[in-house]
Amino acid sequence: MAREVQKLQIIPLGGLGEIGKNMTVVRYGDDILVIDAGLMFPEEEMLGIDLVIPDITYLLENKDKIRAIVLTHGHEDHIGALPYVLRQIPGVPVYGTRLTLGILEGRLRENGVDASTLHPVHHGDIISAGCFTVGFIRVNHSIADACGLSIKTPIGMIVHTGDFKFDYTPIDGKMTDFRAFSDLGNRGVLALLADSTNAEREGHTPSERTVGIAFDRTFRKAKNRIIIATFSSNVHRIQQVVDTAVKYNRHVAILGRSMINVVNISIKLGYLNIPEGVLIDVDEINNYPLNQIVIITTGSQGEPMSALTRMSTSNHRKVGILPGDTIIISATPIPGNEKLVSRTIDNLLKQGADVVYGRDEGIHVSGHASREELKLMHNLVRPKFFIPVHGEYHHIVKHAKLAESIGMPKENIFISENGQVLEFTRDEGHVAGKVVAGKVLIDGLGVGDVGNIVLRDRRQLSQDGILIVVVTMDKERCCIAAGPDIVSRGFVYVRESEALMEEAKERVTTAIENCLANNITEWSVLKNDIREAIGRYLYEKTRRRPMILPIIMEV
Amino acid sequence: MAREVQKLQIIPLGGLGEIGKNMTVVRYGDDILVIDAGLMFPEEEMLGIDLVIPDITYLLENKDKIRAIVLTHGHEDHIGALPYVLRQIPGVPVYGTRLTLGILEGRLRENGVDASTLHPVHHGDIISAGCFTVGFIRVNHSIADACGLSIKTPIGMIVHTGDFKFDYTPIDGKMTDFRAFSDLGNRGVLALLADSTNAEREGHTPSERTVGIAFDRTFRKAKNRIIIATFSSNVHRIQQVVDTAVKYNRHVAILGRSMINVVNISIKLGYLNIPEGVLIDVDEINNYPLNQIVIITTGSQGEPMSALTRMSTSNHRKVGILPGDTIIISATPIPGNEKLVSRTIDNLLKQGADVVYGRDEGIHVSGHASREELKLMHNLVRPKFFIPVHGEYHHIVKHAKLAESIGMPKENIFISENGQVLEFTRDEGHVAGKVVAGKVLIDGLGVGDVGNIVLRDRRQLSQDGILIVVVTMDKERCCIAAGPDIVSRGFVYVRESEALMEEAKERVTTAIENCLANNITEWSVLKNDIREAIGRYLYEKTRRRPMILPIIMEV
Repeated sequence: MAREVQKLQIIPLGGLGEIGKNMTVVRYGDDILVIDAGLMFPEEEMLGIDLVIPDITYLLENKDKIRAIVLTHGHEDHIGALPYVLRQIPGVPVYGTRLTLGILEGRLRENGVDASTLHPVHHGDIISAGCFTVGFIRVNHSIADACGLSIKTPIGMIVHTGDFKFDYTPIDGKMTDFRAFSDLGNRGVLALLADSTNAEREGHTPSERTVGIAFDRTFRKAKNRIIIATFSSNVHRIQQVVDTAVKYNRHVAILGRSMINVVNISIKLGYLNIPEGVLIDVDEINNYPLNQIVIITTGSQGEPMSALTRMSTSNHRKVGILPGDTIIISATPIPGNEKLVSRTIDNLLKQGADVVYGRDEGIHVSGHASREELKLMHNLVRPKFFIPVHGEYHHIVKHAKLAESIGMPKENIFISENGQVLEFTRDEGHVAGKVVAGKVLIDGLGVGDVGNIVLRDRRQLSQDGILIVVVTMDKERCCIAAGPDIVSRGFVYVRESEALMEEAKERVTTAIENCLANNITEWSVLKNDIREAIGRYLYEKTRRRPMILPIIMEV
Repeated sequence: MAREVQKLQIIPLGGLGEIGKNMTVVRYGDDILVIDAGLMFPEEEMLGIDLVIPDITYLLENKDKIRAIVLTHGHEDHIGALPYVLRQIPGVPVYGTRLTLGILEGRLRENGVDASTLHPVHHGDIISAGCFTVGFIRVNHSIADACGLSIKTPIGMIVHTGDFKFDYTPIDGKMTDFRAFSDLGNRGVLALLADSTNAEREGHTPSERTVGIAFDRTFRKAKNRIIIATFSSNVHRIQQVVDTAVKYNRHVAILGRSMINVVNISIKLGYLNIPEGVLIDVDEINNYPLNQIVIITTGSQGEPMSALTRMSTSNHRKVGILPGDTIIISATPIPGNEKLVSRTIDNLLKQGADVVYGRDEGIHVSGHASREELKLMHNLVRPKFFIPVHGEYHHIVKHAKLAESIGMPKENIFISENGQVLEFTRDEGHVAGKVVAGKVLIDGLGVGDVGNIVLRDRRQLSQDGILIVVVTMDKERCCIAAGPDIVSRGFVYVRESEALMEEAKERVTTAIENCLANNITEWSVLKNDIREAIGRYLYEKTRRRPMILPIIMEV
């Protein structure tokens, strides 16, 4: 046991083999440090699910050892699980930069969770958490105020990049802190955990500033209103829209709940500078000529309930699309959203708008480091061990190979997975077991109550619907008292399928009579017989397999 | 009336504003020519639907006028609706090249549809159909034997490009027939209908031959087996795999039903040349060293039931993945399939395979013309009128703008839509009305029987499941005879929600008793009350809205 506590453990609870729900545990003896607590949006087959968060069983079992939660930045996939985590682990200090905590506070308030343990830090600050000393290092990302972390442990330094890129011309003039990473490298780093999102992308991710140049080009040509959809958290992008609007004498209105929230927080905290008189309320836009208006809005992913999508289908309460509007979609579709985005573009075009979108237009850049930047980070930090994080399995494999290609010994690179315990001494690392990890599904108010059985049922229901067979049995006289009735939903259009239903009903009656004739009065047997009899019949006639649900009542 | 028949009508029944189910009608007086009859794969929200075909009401109403169906090539989105169309319009002659008809014949046979009206043509052939004369022009595409069409009508020539690209180094040495298009241009073309799929892609689509170069590079490095997934219809791609296999002394096995089908047809018709002894049965692969095997298979889109996907999850009956296998995914994901493909790649990597995939690897090229090729086609054909076809609305708009940018007058370009009738004289064109057009959904054996109501139900069922409330009423004594019982599926995990269900049951009982106390015995009123009472309660407790289905029986 004494030996055991001398080892450093790194346990990812989310973000490995997936994009989202990032969460990593660092443990040494009885001290646990948690890095980020993000959510993930549900996969297509998670029908009806709203959100997915990491399974934190391991943390709940070790509640008393958690010294702090440190946050790298304010994106949902890094802070979105905190309302659920903090409800179960109250009182843990949470450290993050001001914008990160500003966004988080809103989330906590919406969920009625106490926010009194949030502690703001600045880049360059150092905090203590048990045996760990954590430093916050400035990095560039698609949200302001993002951090990488230096984590000093009793056996060596760990560096976690957070989500990052190297932007040599950032909007706020504040670059990824090369020197800090380089200094850490000089002093010796035991292990590096680095963002793998763009590990498949060659070259160098363009600077955020290039987007401003594309905005300028588009603003110069636009004759009427300009409507820009982008991620609400990309404060620098919004700053560039504002700057370009000022240059071209346009007023700016903000639309969409999350956009309004983030803009308000950012103005309050000084991350967004909007000159007096530029910002107008969306209700005022009609008081100005069309060529003096810019609307910044949500909906860059074609989300059905977002402002831009509603506008595109003429369903927005306040703003409609006018022919001649220029719409800029300043984002690329996240995998899975391509069709939604493409449909929104089509609807906007049909209303006579000019739509600027797509990779070639220069109106969006990624917030993640491409391969050359990753190589730079590795060369600055020069770690002994490397654990690629934040990415699907193929991203992580590509990142591992990248590290190998620049000279890192293969045995020092760990392709890990959620729940896997990596254990390090000063000299070596190895897999030391597994803890519980996985997905907790959130559906409405339910956290984790929708499991595989419920999802399997939803899947079957979604494919061929349901057929309910109800029959009331007279238990005493051993005969049918009422029914059988058949009700279907999502199976066939009932009016055109009367004959099918009649025949099905007869087959049910026959099945029941056969049972009764054989003195079978166990309802479970009867139910099975009903299910089989009409399941086979319906498949023959329709090649569909609706869920068949026999319900037997007794009088 | 006499004036009316002098006009030429072009009516798209599918393929405009969508990718898939391509079908165009050309009509002059009492003569109708149909170009292609394709299917589309269902959109995400079309739950449980297998396929989508065009609504052919217009054709059924004008059955006696249909002179011929002409096919541009053998892809599903151009021929896939024919089993359904020909069943409803039997006896119409169908013209296409040999490979197109070879693939179609298989489809018709599977569906028990008569194939005796198929007439094979060669490139350069001309056929008559009523007042029309149709010429078949060779074009390059991602399937062999593809055609553009020249359609001579009484008032001028129409040119339809089909799906095409300009490949200067095609695998079979047979290029898109520039001269035919150029000759048509010289003689004067009234209207051009052209493929818009890649109208947003700059430059020139690379030659199919470049894929062979990438194959060669990968084969040279591979130490064990090579498994290549690609579209089964891409005969030239398969030929390149075979050629590279021969060069590197590997045997070729074919896997996957549709791959085997197309390979067999292609060998039989001479489109695929496989030297004696190269092809082996998949059962024989274990008789050869690993470095002498190539397996060509389906599953490049991560389709759940395909051979590659099954292999990736160790669920294939015959072939498993071995560490050290090289897997080549020679395709890019069709929008909507990104996640499936990415999951397959991850599963293959986890089994220790080396996976070659993605745009940068050169192992796939598109079959559609990019912007420079489209400009070339426009310049060869020099039509008076232009109708962009085959594409979502934004593709069509971009293609229209491309035509404008190279000098075509805006008023001669028609951005049309499915069902819209464009009418042309020698001098002008205009929109002359609308015919029925739309989507017919195929689910199992049902063609068009799943409509909006069924889909809406499936959608609701998929999100929050269903809750069935059954109660048997004693009509005479006006009281509950049995129940209420509540059964749910896809809503909550029942064992953990007993209290919720008990309370819901009580609310139902109260609702019924209230009704009875007020002498309400109309079951529809009672059902509404039940629905409302527990709907509200469940939403409050769970924030979910399952479908609530009250069933009342009488004894």
